[in-house]
Amino acid sequence: MTQTIGIGLVGTGYMGKCHALAWNSVKAVFGNGRRPRLVHLGEVTVELARQKAEEFGFERATGNWRDVVADPEVDVVSITTPNQFHADMAIAALEAGKHVWCEKPMAVAFADAQRMADAARASGKAAVLGYNYIQNPAVRHIDALLRDGVIGPVNHVRVEMDEDFMADPDALFYWKSEASSGYGAIDDFGVHPLSLITTLLGPVERVMANMSKPYADRPARDGGRRSVETYDIASILIELQNGASGLIALSRTAWGRKGRIAVQIFGAKGTITYDQERLNEVQVYETSDKPAEQGFRTILTGPSHPPYDRFIPAAGHGLGFNDLKIIEAHELLKAIAGQEARVIDFAQGLEIERTVHAMAQSHHEGRWVDVAEKG
Amino acid sequence: MTQTIGIGLVGTGYMGKCHALAWNSVKAVFGNGRRPRLVHLGEVTVELARQKAEEFGFERATGNWRDVVADPEVDVVSITTPNQFHADMAIAALEAGKHVWCEKPMAVAFADAQRMADAARASGKAAVLGYNYIQNPAVRHIDALLRDGVIGPVNHVRVEMDEDFMADPDALFYWKSEASSGYGAIDDFGVHPLSLITTLLGPVERVMANMSKPYADRPARDGGRRSVETYDIASILIELQNGASGLIALSRTAWGRKGRIAVQIFGAKGTITYDQERLNEVQVYETSDKPAEQGFRTILTGPSHPPYDRFIPAAGHGLGFNDLKIIEAHELLKAIAGQEARVIDFAQGLEIERTVHAMAQSHHEGRWVDVAEKG
Amino acid sequence: MTQTIGIGLVGTGYMGKCHALAWNSVKAVFGNGRRPRLVHLGEVTVELARQKAEEFGFERATGNWRDVVADPEVDVVSITTPNQFHADMAIAALEAGKHVWCEKPMAVAFADAQRMADAARASGKAAVLGYNYIQNPAVRHIDALLRDGVIGPVNHVRVEMDEDFMADPDALFYWKSEASSGYGAIDDFGVHPLSLITTLLGPVERVMANMSKPYADRPARDGGRRSVETYDIASILIELQNGASGLIALSRTAWGRKGRIAVQIFGAKGTITYDQERLNEVQVYETSDKPAEQGFRTILTGPSHPPYDRFIPAAGHGLGFNDLKIIEAHELLKAIAGQEARVIDFAQGLEIERTVHAMAQSHHEGRWVDVAEKG
Amino acid sequence: MTQTIGIGLVGTGYMGKCHALAWNSVKAVFGNGRRPRLVHLGEVTVELARQKAEEFGFERATGNWRDVVADPEVDVVSITTPNQFHADMAIAALEAGKHVWCEKPMAVAFADAQRMADAARASGKAAVLGYNYIQNPAVRHIDALLRDGVIGPVNHVRVEMDEDFMADPDALFYWKSEASSGYGAIDDFGVHPLSLITTLLGPVERVMANMSKPYADRPARDGGRRSVETYDIASILIELQNGASGLIALSRTAWGRKGRIAVQIFGAKGTITYDQERLNEVQVYETSDKPAEQGFRTILTGPSHPPYDRFIPAAGHGLGFNDLKIIEAHELLKAIAGQEARVIDFAQGLEIERTVHAMAQSHHEGRWVDVAEKG
Repeated sequence: MTQTIGIGLVGTGYMGKCHALAWNSVKAVFGNGRRPRLVHLGEVTVELARQKAEEFGFERATGNWRDVVADPEVDVVSITTPNQFHADMAIAALEAGKHVWCEKPMAVAFADAQRMADAARASGKAAVLGYNYIQNPAVRHIDALLRDGVIGPVNHVRVEMDEDFMADPDALFYWKSEASSGYGAIDDFGVHPLSLITTLLGPVERVMANMSKPYADRPARDGGRRSVETYDIASILIELQNGASGLIALSRTAWGRKGRIAVQIFGAKGTITYDQERLNEVQVYETSDKPAEQGFRTILTGPSHPPYDRFIPAAGHGLGFNDLKIIEAHELLKAIAGQEARVIDFAQGLEIERTVHAMAQSHHEGRWVDVAEKG
Repeated sequence: MTQTIGIGLVGTGYMGKCHALAWNSVKAVFGNGRRPRLVHLGEVTVELARQKAEEFGFERATGNWRDVVADPEVDVVSITTPNQFHADMAIAALEAGKHVWCEKPMAVAFADAQRMADAARASGKAAVLGYNYIQNPAVRHIDALLRDGVIGPVNHVRVEMDEDFMADPDALFYWKSEASSGYGAIDDFGVHPLSLITTLLGPVERVMANMSKPYADRPARDGGRRSVETYDIASILIELQNGASGLIALSRTAWGRKGRIAVQIFGAKGTITYDQERLNEVQVYETSDKPAEQGFRTILTGPSHPPYDRFIPAAGHGLGFNDLKIIEAHELLKAIAGQEARVIDFAQGLEIERTVHAMAQSHHEGRWVDVAEKG
Repeated sequence: MTQTIGIGLVGTGYMGKCHALAWNSVKAVFGNGRRPRLVHLGEVTVELARQKAEEFGFERATGNWRDVVADPEVDVVSITTPNQFHADMAIAALEAGKHVWCEKPMAVAFADAQRMADAARASGKAAVLGYNYIQNPAVRHIDALLRDGVIGPVNHVRVEMDEDFMADPDALFYWKSEASSGYGAIDDFGVHPLSLITTLLGPVERVMANMSKPYADRPARDGGRRSVETYDIASILIELQNGASGLIALSRTAWGRKGRIAVQIFGAKGTITYDQERLNEVQVYETSDKPAEQGFRTILTGPSHPPYDRFIPAAGHGLGFNDLKIIEAHELLKAIAGQEARVIDFAQGLEIERTVHAMAQSHHEGRWVDVAEKG
Repeated sequence: MTQTIGIGLVGTGYMGKCHALAWNSVKAVFGNGRRPRLVHLGEVTVELARQKAEEFGFERATGNWRDVVADPEVDVVSITTPNQFHADMAIAALEAGKHVWCEKPMAVAFADAQRMADAARASGKAAVLGYNYIQNPAVRHIDALLRDGVIGPVNHVRVEMDEDFMADPDALFYWKSEASSGYGAIDDFGVHPLSLITTLLGPVERVMANMSKPYADRPARDGGRRSVETYDIASILIELQNGASGLIALSRTAWGRKGRIAVQIFGAKGTITYDQERLNEVQVYETSDKPAEQGFRTILTGPSHPPYDRFIPAAGHGLGFNDLKIIEAHELLKAIAGQEARVIDFAQGLEIERTVHAMAQSHHEGRWVDVAEKG
């Protein structure tokens, strides 16, 4: 008899559905571990909750998220609500003895992120953030290449993350342009490049950021125009604790970019590049190749790049974005089972938040800020 | 209360797992229709069947596929066994009043494919083949572009399908090199390009094929070498009923190609290209653009290209190979519900088989063969 | 004192200018050999000849090409006139004791090509055809890779050559649609892929072609429509003397393709690809790489790929189309000096013509034709 | 009778040869203007000068550059010597009444650049710098797209310039690692991105740079190791006078990059990208396309993109790096003839130098520096 693990889900938007799909598939993909039992789903109204429970396969539905957290048959709570709710929900779930899988970023305010990390430490439960891009077999392969020294010591890194969902200057003002939502690109986006950089290369030591507003105001829903309070574009100079220099470039107004996360890692013996818009490809340039035959190799991920093989036995057939979340669910299950797991937990997530807030400070003060200065 | 539909699965290899994943996810992805209830799984031994049933979430397991077909709680049978078993299983399932989802190609012998098509017609049930590439939102977008006349009347088409799983001349001889498995690339592979061509452009009128063996023999398991009986490479001139000329190029010994299906469609007003190795991209060249700005546009699929939006609300984040099978499962459920569906049923599948056998004949006779000549 | 060599040029269109540019630059690029002295230029009128002589730097101009051939100070005659004039001009020049550099294809009629080859053999002079693509350092590198066995024995080759200068169905009928200009794509175009295939892989043994007319008629200059007599599209199955199979695909109605010559060469140990539209890149896939790191390497040509270094000392900066003609001029000068040279001379060019005519025959007879059958 | 213009050349390395090739070809390519007469060539020894004069086609040779400057038959002096000699040579030539074509950067010291600009202004002669990348028809097309408002007002720009000629940590220390050669990447390289940015988007207002040394020391010629004094890598935040933000990223230790100048320009209605390693391609994303068909268009340059048509009448055949220098020579000849010309003259070049020195200052002071602060 397969053992099950009880799942609660709060929020059913973009990421809520993504979690639900992962919970539905993870056992069949990986074949091992406990089978997720989709127990309880919470939404803002019980009607919406019921509809989504029916679609996603949850047994129970509620209009009050506290019911999910309190449900004794729930072992893990997936939190996929807007960012300002993460802290209260995650802390309540941890205090109720649940494991937590919370979407990024942790919280809008740094103090909230600190409270979350404290609660996670106190609970002894798995408390994991939804940084799915680090789960890509392509990124794991980059990790392996770096560990194996294939490109030698890394001395420089560049990461660009660009999308265009805020690019239309004629689109109506909405909450992402309000200061209450955060700084803008650096927290909405910048946390993803930071998750990759810290996973692949270690912590950031200091930052120097420039944030900008491509559009000073946007049309308001009730006519007229409203001033934009967040920064859709940011460029950040960074230095890592390992001595490498680098930069992070972020834009959510980059027309034509849909899910670009372009990574370039330069070492003394080679270079690795990768772009999430072609998520099944890694490029590697190695100086160990013969001079006349040196070139960037485009590696299509396949069974040689675990856990690709759990999805498809043939190389180059392509994983998708949702598959990364299935891998993440599997890593979370490993963490819950006390096994070594590739996750960004609340303690590591706090360091990412710390870096983001250092970026904002450096922008406002026009100077380099050491990440350690923050908190 | 959600209505369910009972699923039986025979075979748990590459495609068996792929079907199981699709059945697990289809309801959560699309949100509508009956929820698949994974009822009965058949494998060659009951032990393997039990293990896979536990992994995939099936309720019952058997070492005899006839148990699956006979199970009154099973409404649909997924058939993912080796090709030589398709005919008997599919016909038995149809005769037992089940809907059938059978992997491609239909059968090794043309007569078997004909029997399958006959049984499907007699049954009145949905009998659908596993041609997943036509389900790609990118391919559907090509369909829409063609229907809208964006590139004008099509006059030429080229499709290459290449992989490298037979490319190593030092790999041991196995059943794919035996004549009993079929002709080689044209049936193992060629059916996929044909599924795309017939879906997008209509039936093939005549063919002229050249098949070749890159390696005359391969190492035998018991030492020595064994003559290769199938053709790993094939190049086929084609003419379509709509008057367009074209070619199909196939190789399963193309080093470095992992899942390449490169399509080029030429019209009087533009060109469309697509490669399954970058399955989220379509290229379109349109002469309606200003001369100095004409160029191939790389369109990243997104919510504008249904049913991408059922998976991810943001463009360019990328579907994977397994997602195509989820779409296919959804189309099958629509067909079962009596709705219009994008599927290749046994009747259409038979035309693909007919074309394949015409190719083989043209190779052996060194002349053009009309598809209609076959049977 | 630098020795000079006297140049004559007949024709000043696309290729005429290209020859003139090459003669102007070859000494400065390569630094060795005789300096071309631009002596005599012929055009259809003396006025045009004078204008072009002034532009290109020729000393004398004439409206009668026989003056160029007869000029005692001319050592080499560049022939860049329309194809139907090649035979008479080349033969006259050879008989006058000149070396000849004649644009491809040799002639419209096979008998003319034979006469040209005969005249060349009788003359003992250098008689070279303008197959510039074989001069690309990228193509030379492919040659080196093949010679070194990097991809093992070649078993399959595909070459596509596509442009779109005939793609507009509303463009006026002009001489390229008249039967007197030749067959269409196979002689206008197909000779380039054949120059690459024979240079890289050796002679073609037999062919099976299908030619097609995307547009049955085109608007005539005087109103109305006129039937198209040539075939803008051709697909050809080929088998090489070395045992490899392959195909050639040609279109001059391929919207969006501007100078595509896409080459794919498959071997037992790897694959090489190349596209003339990105003329400074070669892709190589080698199975000697570690499995998890196998991928197509994109090699940017540079000083490791001679004679790139004669143009630019830094890799990846890019040669252009006209640079290939400079290399060709240099090879011709080597041939004239009695050194080993990379050229396609009239004897080899005749074999290319023979293959083209075999293609046409195979199309009309619907069967494979051995190249040796021709002539 | 064609009028000629007398050319002097000082320096025959990488850029010296490039100038010589341009002077040899410019008349034949463009067909108009005065024919360059290659009069006098100077090198460090008369022997080398004579050899190069013979190769390049110069009439006279000297071991003393002042002979070139003083030659009454010389109208224009090409200066392609190491950077520290530019100022003296250019000023002497200008004072001798010659036009000057000087390679970039202007000088190592800012004061020298100022002296050069002063001398140019005083002379009334054409004084032009060798910023060839702005001459690329692809870049000119970007210019046209921006002027036409195709992507709307620009709000962000990123330019990366990367090569790998300093990437090998085991290569011997040479003068480019000495402080006397300048700062490192920002002057050796950064001037190129600045030439593009200022040409396309206007002047830079303020900068914030971070320079780094990937290798602290390098092997010395006489054994042991020597400390590196220059910065091979630099990342620079910028703000333009037009209000756009941006960044410049530079590395001469980026393994695998050979001539990468990757430009991304973001506007309110679209995006333009371009990479010099594929110098015949421009990518444009326009929101005026229909939503489901939006994508980056890859435009191959051709006759629609002047002055491509002067080189080749067919699109997509490809210009090379040396062709850009021919265009530059033609623009210089236009400037000399008093026509409007696309050049960066000494006055504009000085602004580029000013920006470079502001970058260095910002690095050392860890703060933003207004370009106007310098000088």
